[in-house]
Amino acid sequence: MRRQRLAPQTGTAFRLQKDELLTVWDPEGEQVADLFCFEESEPFGVLSSGRSIDYNDTLFFSKGHRLYSFTGDVLLEIIEDRCGRHDFLVTPCSLQMFRMLAKEAHLEHPSCQHNLEVSLSKFGFAPTRLGTTFNIFMNVEVDPQGRVRVGVPQSKAGDFVVFRAHRDLVVGLTACSDEGTNNGRCKPIEYEISRGL
Amino acid sequence: MRRQRLAPQTGTAFRLQKDELLTVWDPEGEQVADLFCFEESEPFGVLSSGRSIDYNDTLFFSKGHRLYSFTGDVLLEIIEDRCGRHDFLVTPCSLQMFRMLAKEAHLEHPSCQHNLEVSLSKFGFAPTRLGTTFNIFMNVEVDPQGRVRVGVPQSKAGDFVVFRAHRDLVVGLTACSDEGTNNGRCKPIEYEISRGL
Repeated sequence: MRRQRLAPQTGTAFRLQKDELLTVWDPEGEQVADLFCFEESEPFGVLSSGRSIDYNDTLFFSKGHRLYSFTGDVLLEIIEDRCGRHDFLVTPCSLQMFRMLAKEAHLEHPSCQHNLEVSLSKFGFAPTRLGTTFNIFMNVEVDPQGRVRVGVPQSKAGDFVVFRAHRDLVVGLTACSDEGTNNGRCKPIEYEISRGL
Repeated sequence: MRRQRLAPQTGTAFRLQKDELLTVWDPEGEQVADLFCFEESEPFGVLSSGRSIDYNDTLFFSKGHRLYSFTGDVLLEIIEDRCGRHDFLVTPCSLQMFRMLAKEAHLEHPSCQHNLEVSLSKFGFAPTRLGTTFNIFMNVEVDPQGRVRVGVPQSKAGDFVVFRAHRDLVVGLTACSDEGTNNGRCKPIEYEISRGL
Protein backbone atom coordinates (compact mmCIF):
# COMPACT_ATOMS: atom_id res chain seq x y z
CA MET A 1 0.00 0.00 0.00
CA ARG A 2 1.29 3.45 -0.84
CA ARG A 3 1.47 6.08 1.83
CA GLN A 4 -1.97 7.51 2.54
CA ARG A 5 -2.87 10.97 3.74
CA LEU A 6 -5.60 11.85 6.22
CA ALA A 7 -6.88 15.37 5.66
CA PRO A 8 -7.07 17.55 8.78
CA GLN A 9 -9.94 16.62 11.12
CA THR A 10 -10.73 13.34 9.37
CA GLY A 11 -10.39 9.65 10.18
CA THR A 12 -10.35 6.22 8.61
CA ALA A 13 -10.29 2.52 9.47
CA PHE A 14 -8.60 -0.43 7.79
CA ARG A 15 -7.56 -4.01 8.37
CA LEU A 16 -4.03 -4.70 9.60
CA GLN A 17 -2.99 -8.34 9.45
CA LYS A 18 -0.79 -10.10 11.99
CA ASP A 19 2.90 -9.23 11.42
CA GLU A 20 2.10 -6.27 9.18
CA LEU A 21 3.57 -2.91 10.12
CA LEU A 22 1.69 0.34 10.42
CA THR A 23 3.74 3.54 10.14
CA VAL A 24 2.12 6.82 11.18
CA TRP A 25 3.82 10.10 10.22
CA ASP A 26 3.27 13.64 11.40
CA PRO A 27 4.18 15.39 8.13
CA GLU A 28 4.11 18.99 9.41
CA GLY A 29 4.80 18.49 13.15
CA GLU A 30 2.76 19.13 16.31
CA GLN A 31 -0.20 17.03 15.12
CA VAL A 32 -1.90 14.23 17.04
CA ALA A 33 -3.34 11.01 15.56
CA ASP A 34 -5.78 8.99 17.67
CA LEU A 35 -5.55 5.23 17.19
CA PHE A 36 -7.98 2.52 18.24
CA CYS A 37 -8.10 -1.14 17.25
CA PHE A 38 -9.96 -4.39 17.78
CA GLU A 39 -10.04 -8.02 16.67
CA GLU A 40 -13.00 -8.97 14.50
CA SER A 41 -12.85 -12.55 15.78
CA GLU A 42 -12.73 -11.91 19.54
CA PRO A 43 -15.41 -9.98 21.49
CA PHE A 44 -12.93 -9.00 24.23
CA GLY A 45 -10.18 -8.24 21.71
CA VAL A 46 -10.49 -4.48 22.07
CA LEU A 47 -7.69 -2.03 22.88
CA SER A 48 -7.40 -1.38 26.64
CA SER A 49 -5.42 1.50 28.09
CA GLY A 50 -5.97 0.09 31.59
CA ARG A 51 -4.49 -3.30 30.72
CA SER A 52 -1.64 -1.67 28.78
CA ILE A 53 -0.65 0.73 31.57
CA ASP A 54 -0.79 -2.15 34.06
CA TYR A 55 1.22 -4.65 32.00
CA ASN A 56 3.85 -2.16 30.79
CA ASP A 57 4.14 -0.44 34.20
CA THR A 58 4.16 2.95 32.47
CA LEU A 59 1.98 5.92 31.54
CA PHE A 60 4.22 6.82 28.62
CA PHE A 61 4.64 4.40 25.73
CA SER A 62 7.50 4.24 23.26
CA LYS A 63 9.66 1.72 21.38
CA GLY A 64 9.35 -1.76 22.88
CA HIS A 65 6.04 -1.18 24.62
CA ARG A 66 3.02 -3.32 23.80
CA LEU A 67 -0.63 -2.34 23.54
CA TYR A 68 -2.96 -4.93 25.06
CA SER A 69 -6.61 -5.85 24.68
CA PHE A 70 -9.07 -6.83 27.40
CA THR A 71 -8.14 -10.49 26.80
CA GLY A 72 -4.60 -9.68 27.89
CA ASP A 73 -3.26 -10.39 24.40
CA VAL A 74 -0.88 -8.01 22.67
CA LEU A 75 -2.56 -6.23 19.76
CA LEU A 76 0.23 -3.87 18.69
CA GLU A 77 3.89 -3.39 19.56
CA ILE A 78 5.74 -0.13 19.04
CA ILE A 79 8.87 -1.10 17.13
CA GLU A 80 10.10 2.39 16.19
CA ASP A 81 9.38 5.82 17.62
CA ARG A 82 10.94 9.05 16.34
CA CYS A 83 8.93 11.30 18.65
CA GLY A 84 8.98 9.67 22.09
CA ARG A 85 5.89 11.22 23.63
CA HIS A 86 2.39 9.89 23.19
CA ASP A 87 -0.69 9.63 25.37
CA PHE A 88 -2.79 6.69 26.54
CA LEU A 89 -4.74 8.43 29.31
CA VAL A 90 -7.54 10.38 27.66
CA THR A 91 -10.48 9.65 25.38
CA PRO A 92 -10.81 11.19 21.90
CA CYS A 93 -12.06 14.73 21.46
CA SER A 94 -15.83 14.69 21.08
CA LEU A 95 -18.61 17.04 20.01
CA GLN A 96 -19.82 17.07 23.62
CA MET A 97 -16.34 18.20 24.74
CA PHE A 98 -16.23 21.03 22.22
CA ARG A 99 -19.70 22.18 23.25
CA MET A 100 -18.71 22.08 26.92
CA LEU A 101 -15.49 24.03 26.34
CA ALA A 102 -17.21 26.63 24.14
CA LYS A 103 -20.30 26.77 26.37
CA GLU A 104 -22.37 26.52 23.18
CA ALA A 105 -24.95 23.76 23.27
CA HIS A 106 -25.49 23.76 19.50
CA LEU A 107 -21.90 24.14 18.32
CA GLU A 108 -20.90 21.90 15.43
CA HIS A 109 -17.29 20.69 15.28
CA PRO A 110 -15.52 17.65 13.80
CA SER A 111 -14.17 15.22 16.40
CA CYS A 112 -12.01 12.12 16.69
CA GLN A 113 -14.82 10.41 18.58
CA HIS A 114 -17.21 10.88 15.65
CA ASN A 115 -14.60 10.08 13.02
CA LEU A 116 -13.65 6.85 14.78
CA GLU A 117 -17.27 5.85 15.39
CA VAL A 118 -18.12 6.28 11.70
CA SER A 119 -14.96 4.59 10.44
CA LEU A 120 -14.97 1.63 12.83
CA SER A 121 -18.70 0.99 12.49
CA LYS A 122 -18.06 0.06 8.83
CA PHE A 123 -16.28 -2.98 10.26
CA GLY A 124 -19.17 -3.84 12.57
CA PHE A 125 -17.73 -2.18 15.67
CA ALA A 126 -20.36 -0.83 18.07
CA PRO A 127 -19.59 2.84 18.76
CA THR A 128 -20.40 2.34 22.43
CA ARG A 129 -17.29 0.15 22.72
CA LEU A 130 -14.88 2.93 21.77
CA GLY A 131 -12.70 3.61 24.83
CA THR A 132 -9.50 5.44 25.58
CA THR A 133 -7.50 5.77 22.37
CA PHE A 134 -3.74 5.55 21.92
CA ASN A 135 -3.07 9.17 21.08
CA ILE A 136 0.03 9.23 18.89
CA PHE A 137 2.14 12.40 19.28
CA MET A 138 -0.23 13.75 21.99
CA ASN A 139 1.63 15.39 24.83
CA VAL A 140 -0.25 15.01 28.10
CA GLU A 141 1.99 16.31 30.86
CA VAL A 142 1.64 14.87 34.36
CA ASP A 143 3.12 16.73 37.33
CA PRO A 144 4.26 15.07 40.60
CA GLN A 145 0.84 15.74 42.17
CA GLY A 146 -0.86 13.91 39.30
CA ARG A 147 -2.22 17.06 37.70
CA VAL A 148 -2.71 16.65 33.98
CA ARG A 149 -2.22 19.27 31.27
CA VAL A 150 -2.34 19.00 27.50
CA GLY A 151 0.90 20.43 26.14
CA VAL A 152 2.08 21.16 22.60
CA PRO A 153 2.94 17.92 20.77
CA GLN A 154 6.68 17.23 20.76
CA SER A 155 6.58 15.80 17.22
CA LYS A 156 8.60 17.56 14.53
CA ALA A 157 7.80 17.47 10.81
CA GLY A 158 8.48 13.97 9.51
CA ASP A 159 8.48 12.21 12.87
CA PHE A 160 6.91 8.77 12.79
CA VAL A 161 5.95 5.73 14.83
CA VAL A 162 5.90 2.13 13.62
CA PHE A 163 3.59 -0.51 15.10
CA ARG A 164 3.72 -4.25 14.47
CA ALA A 165 0.42 -6.12 14.63
CA HIS A 166 0.47 -9.20 16.87
CA ARG A 167 -3.06 -10.22 15.80
CA ASP A 168 -5.34 -9.64 12.81
CA LEU A 169 -6.86 -6.25 13.58
CA VAL A 170 -9.11 -3.48 12.43
CA VAL A 171 -7.42 -0.14 13.14
CA GLY A 172 -9.13 3.24 13.35
CA LEU A 173 -6.91 6.30 12.88
CA THR A 174 -7.57 10.04 12.86
CA ALA A 175 -5.90 13.34 12.23
CA CYS A 176 -7.04 14.92 15.51
CA SER A 177 -9.79 17.55 15.22
CA ASP A 178 -9.01 19.60 18.32
CA GLU A 179 -7.18 22.84 17.56
CA GLY A 180 -6.12 23.17 21.21
CA THR A 181 -4.37 19.80 21.25
CA ASN A 182 -2.47 20.56 18.03
CA ASN A 183 -0.92 23.96 18.86
CA GLY A 184 -3.73 25.95 17.30
CA ARG A 185 -4.07 24.35 13.86
CA CYS A 186 -5.32 20.95 12.75
CA LYS A 187 -2.98 19.40 10.21
CA PRO A 188 -2.84 16.16 8.15
CA ILE A 189 -1.52 12.75 9.20
CA GLU A 190 0.05 10.13 6.91
CA TYR A 191 0.18 6.36 7.29
CA GLU A 192 1.28 3.24 5.47
CA ILE A 193 0.85 -0.50 5.88
CA SER A 194 3.86 -2.62 4.99
CA ARG A 195 5.41 -6.01 5.59
CA GLY A 196 8.83 -4.74 6.73
CA LEU A 197 10.79 -1.58 7.48
CA MET B 1 -30.38 0.05 53.51
CA ARG B 2 -28.22 -1.23 56.33
CA ARG B 3 -24.51 -1.46 55.89
CA GLN B 4 -23.59 -4.46 53.76
CA ARG B 5 -20.43 -6.54 53.84
CA LEU B 6 -18.63 -7.97 50.85
CA ALA B 7 -16.66 -11.06 51.81
CA PRO B 8 -13.03 -11.12 50.63
CA GLN B 9 -12.65 -11.71 46.89
CA THR B 10 -16.34 -11.22 46.10
CA GLY B 11 -18.42 -8.62 44.29
CA THR B 12 -21.94 -7.34 43.89
CA ALA B 13 -24.06 -4.92 41.87
CA PHE B 14 -27.03 -2.76 42.83
CA ARG B 15 -29.07 0.21 41.67
CA LEU B 16 -28.13 3.65 42.97
CA GLN B 17 -30.70 6.35 42.26
CA LYS B 18 -29.90 9.96 41.42
CA ASP B 19 -29.01 11.93 44.58
CA GLU B 20 -28.48 8.80 46.65
CA LEU B 21 -25.17 8.41 48.44
CA LEU B 22 -22.93 5.38 48.33
CA THR B 23 -20.44 5.00 51.17
CA VAL B 24 -17.65 2.45 50.81
CA TRP B 25 -15.61 1.47 53.88
CA ASP B 26 -12.34 -0.36 54.27
CA PRO B 27 -13.07 -2.02 57.62
CA GLU B 28 -9.63 -3.52 58.26
CA GLY B 29 -7.40 -1.21 56.19
CA GLU B 30 -5.19 -1.73 53.11
CA GLN B 31 -8.01 -3.23 51.04
CA VAL B 32 -9.06 -2.13 47.56
CA ALA B 33 -12.63 -2.02 46.20
CA ASP B 34 -13.11 -1.81 42.41
CA LEU B 35 -16.13 0.22 41.33
CA PHE B 36 -17.81 0.38 37.94
CA CYS B 37 -21.15 1.89 36.96
CA PHE B 38 -23.48 2.55 34.05
CA GLU B 39 -26.87 4.02 33.20
CA GLU B 40 -29.51 1.50 32.19
CA SER B 41 -31.25 4.11 30.01
CA GLU B 42 -28.25 5.38 28.00
CA PRO B 43 -26.02 3.17 25.82
CA PHE B 44 -23.05 5.56 26.15
CA GLY B 45 -23.70 6.11 29.86
CA VAL B 46 -20.78 3.98 30.98
CA LEU B 47 -17.98 5.00 33.36
CA SER B 48 -14.97 6.39 31.47
CA SER B 49 -11.56 6.85 33.07
CA GLY B 50 -10.37 8.67 29.95
CA ARG B 51 -13.16 11.25 30.08
CA SER B 52 -12.77 11.61 33.85
CA ILE B 53 -8.99 12.17 33.77
CA ASP B 54 -9.46 14.67 30.93
CA TYR B 55 -12.28 16.67 32.52
CA ASN B 56 -10.83 16.72 36.04
CA ASP B 57 -7.26 17.37 34.82
CA THR B 58 -5.95 14.82 37.30
CA LEU B 59 -4.78 11.23 37.67
CA PHE B 60 -5.69 11.17 41.35
CA PHE B 61 -9.30 11.61 42.42
CA SER B 62 -10.57 12.76 45.80
CA LYS B 63 -13.27 14.93 47.37
CA GLY B 64 -14.87 17.23 44.79
CA HIS B 65 -13.85 15.22 41.74
CA ARG B 66 -16.47 13.87 39.38
CA LEU B 67 -16.56 10.58 37.51
CA TYR B 68 -17.85 10.93 33.95
CA SER B 69 -19.38 8.64 31.38
CA PHE B 70 -18.71 8.50 27.64
CA THR B 71 -21.60 10.92 27.13
CA GLY B 72 -19.68 13.52 29.13
CA ASP B 73 -22.29 13.43 31.90
CA VAL B 74 -21.29 13.14 35.54
CA LEU B 75 -22.23 9.75 36.99
CA LEU B 76 -20.74 10.04 40.48
CA GLU B 77 -19.19 12.80 42.56
CA ILE B 78 -16.84 12.13 45.45
CA ILE B 79 -18.28 14.16 48.33
CA GLU B 80 -16.16 12.74 51.17
CA ASP B 81 -12.84 10.93 51.21
CA ARG B 82 -11.07 9.76 54.37
CA CYS B 83 -8.26 8.01 52.52
CA GLY B 84 -7.14 10.37 49.75
CA ARG B 85 -5.51 7.91 47.38
CA HIS B 86 -7.38 5.91 44.78
CA ASP B 87 -6.64 4.71 41.26
CA PHE B 88 -8.37 5.29 37.94
CA LEU B 89 -5.60 4.03 35.64
CA VAL B 90 -5.77 0.27 35.60
CA THR B 91 -8.32 -2.41 34.77
CA PRO B 92 -9.57 -4.94 37.34
CA CYS B 93 -7.51 -7.96 38.26
CA SER B 94 -8.44 -10.85 35.97
CA LEU B 95 -7.91 -14.59 35.74
CA GLN B 96 -5.70 -14.00 32.72
CA MET B 97 -3.53 -11.63 34.80
CA PHE B 98 -3.14 -14.15 37.62
CA ARG B 99 -2.21 -16.87 35.13
CA MET B 100 0.32 -14.59 33.46
CA LEU B 101 1.91 -13.56 36.79
CA ALA B 102 2.03 -17.14 38.08
CA LYS B 103 3.09 -18.54 34.68
CA GLU B 104 0.44 -21.23 35.20
CA ALA B 105 -1.95 -21.57 32.28
CA HIS B 106 -4.55 -23.49 34.29
CA LEU B 107 -4.44 -21.59 37.57
CA GLU B 108 -7.82 -20.82 39.11
CA HIS B 109 -8.20 -17.60 41.11
CA PRO B 110 -11.08 -15.24 41.94
CA SER B 111 -10.88 -11.86 40.21
CA CYS B 112 -12.57 -8.46 40.19
CA GLN B 113 -13.05 -8.79 36.43
CA HIS B 114 -15.05 -11.99 36.86
CA ASN B 115 -16.94 -10.74 39.92
CA LEU B 116 -17.95 -7.54 38.11
CA GLU B 117 -18.89 -9.38 34.91
CA VAL B 118 -21.17 -11.76 36.81
CA SER B 119 -22.71 -9.05 39.01
CA LEU B 120 -23.27 -6.44 36.30
CA SER B 121 -24.61 -8.94 33.76
CA LYS B 122 -27.60 -9.49 36.07
CA PHE B 123 -28.56 -5.91 35.10
CA GLY B 124 -28.12 -6.59 31.39
CA PHE B 125 -24.62 -5.19 31.12
CA ALA B 126 -22.50 -6.86 28.44
CA PRO B 127 -19.23 -8.04 30.04
CA THR B 128 -17.29 -6.84 27.00
CA ARG B 129 -18.16 -3.26 27.97
CA LEU B 130 -16.36 -3.40 31.31
CA GLY B 131 -13.45 -0.95 31.13
CA THR B 132 -11.07 0.70 33.56
CA THR B 133 -12.62 0.64 37.02
CA PHE B 134 -12.44 3.31 39.71
CA ASN B 135 -10.24 1.46 42.17
CA ILE B 136 -11.13 2.77 45.61
CA PHE B 137 -8.19 2.73 48.07
CA MET B 138 -5.83 1.38 45.38
CA ASN B 139 -2.42 3.01 45.52
CA VAL B 140 -0.85 3.20 42.08
CA GLU B 141 2.32 5.24 42.39
CA VAL B 142 3.55 7.22 39.38
CA ASP B 143 7.13 8.49 39.27
CA PRO B 144 8.29 11.58 37.31
CA GLN B 145 9.22 9.38 34.32
CA GLY B 146 5.69 7.98 34.24
CA ARG B 147 6.70 4.60 35.61
CA VAL B 148 3.83 2.92 37.44
CA ARG B 149 4.02 0.73 40.54
CA VAL B 150 1.29 -0.77 42.69
CA GLY B 151 1.98 0.25 46.28
CA VAL B 152 0.36 -0.75 49.58
CA PRO B 153 -3.07 0.90 49.96
CA GLN B 154 -2.92 3.98 52.17
CA SER B 155 -6.33 3.26 53.72
CA LYS B 156 -6.48 2.64 57.46
CA ALA B 157 -9.17 0.57 59.21
CA GLY B 158 -12.45 2.47 59.03
CA ASP B 159 -11.50 4.81 56.20
CA PHE B 160 -14.34 5.52 53.80
CA VAL B 161 -15.35 7.34 50.64
CA VAL B 162 -18.78 8.78 49.86
CA PHE B 163 -20.11 9.15 46.32
CA ARG B 164 -23.23 11.06 45.27
CA ALA B 165 -25.05 9.75 42.21
CA HIS B 166 -25.79 12.39 39.57
CA ARG B 167 -27.86 9.94 37.47
CA ASP B 168 -29.80 6.73 38.05
CA LEU B 169 -27.10 4.09 37.97
CA VAL B 170 -26.23 0.46 38.33
CA VAL B 171 -23.05 0.14 40.38
CA GLY B 172 -20.74 -2.86 40.52
CA LEU B 173 -18.45 -3.14 43.55
CA THR B 174 -15.87 -5.67 44.66
CA ALA B 175 -13.60 -6.54 47.53
CA CYS B 176 -10.47 -6.88 45.38
CA SER B 177 -9.22 -10.43 44.82
CA ASP B 178 -5.54 -9.73 44.26
CA GLU B 179 -3.37 -10.49 47.27
CA GLY B 180 -0.52 -8.40 45.85
CA THR B 181 -2.64 -5.26 45.59
CA ASN B 182 -3.90 -5.63 49.17
CA ASN B 183 -0.62 -6.02 51.07
CA GLY B 184 -0.69 -9.80 51.00
CA ARG B 185 -4.19 -10.59 52.26
CA CYS B 186 -7.62 -10.08 50.72
CA LYS B 187 -10.04 -8.55 53.23
CA PRO B 188 -13.72 -7.53 53.27
CA ILE B 189 -15.28 -4.27 52.08
CA GLU B 190 -18.42 -2.63 53.46
CA TYR B 191 -20.91 -0.32 51.77
CA GLU B 192 -24.19 1.45 52.34
CA ILE B 193 -26.71 3.36 50.25
CA SER B 194 -28.33 6.36 51.95
CA ARG B 195 -30.11 9.62 51.19
CA GLY B 196 -27.85 11.87 53.26
CA LEU B 197 -24.72 11.92 55.40
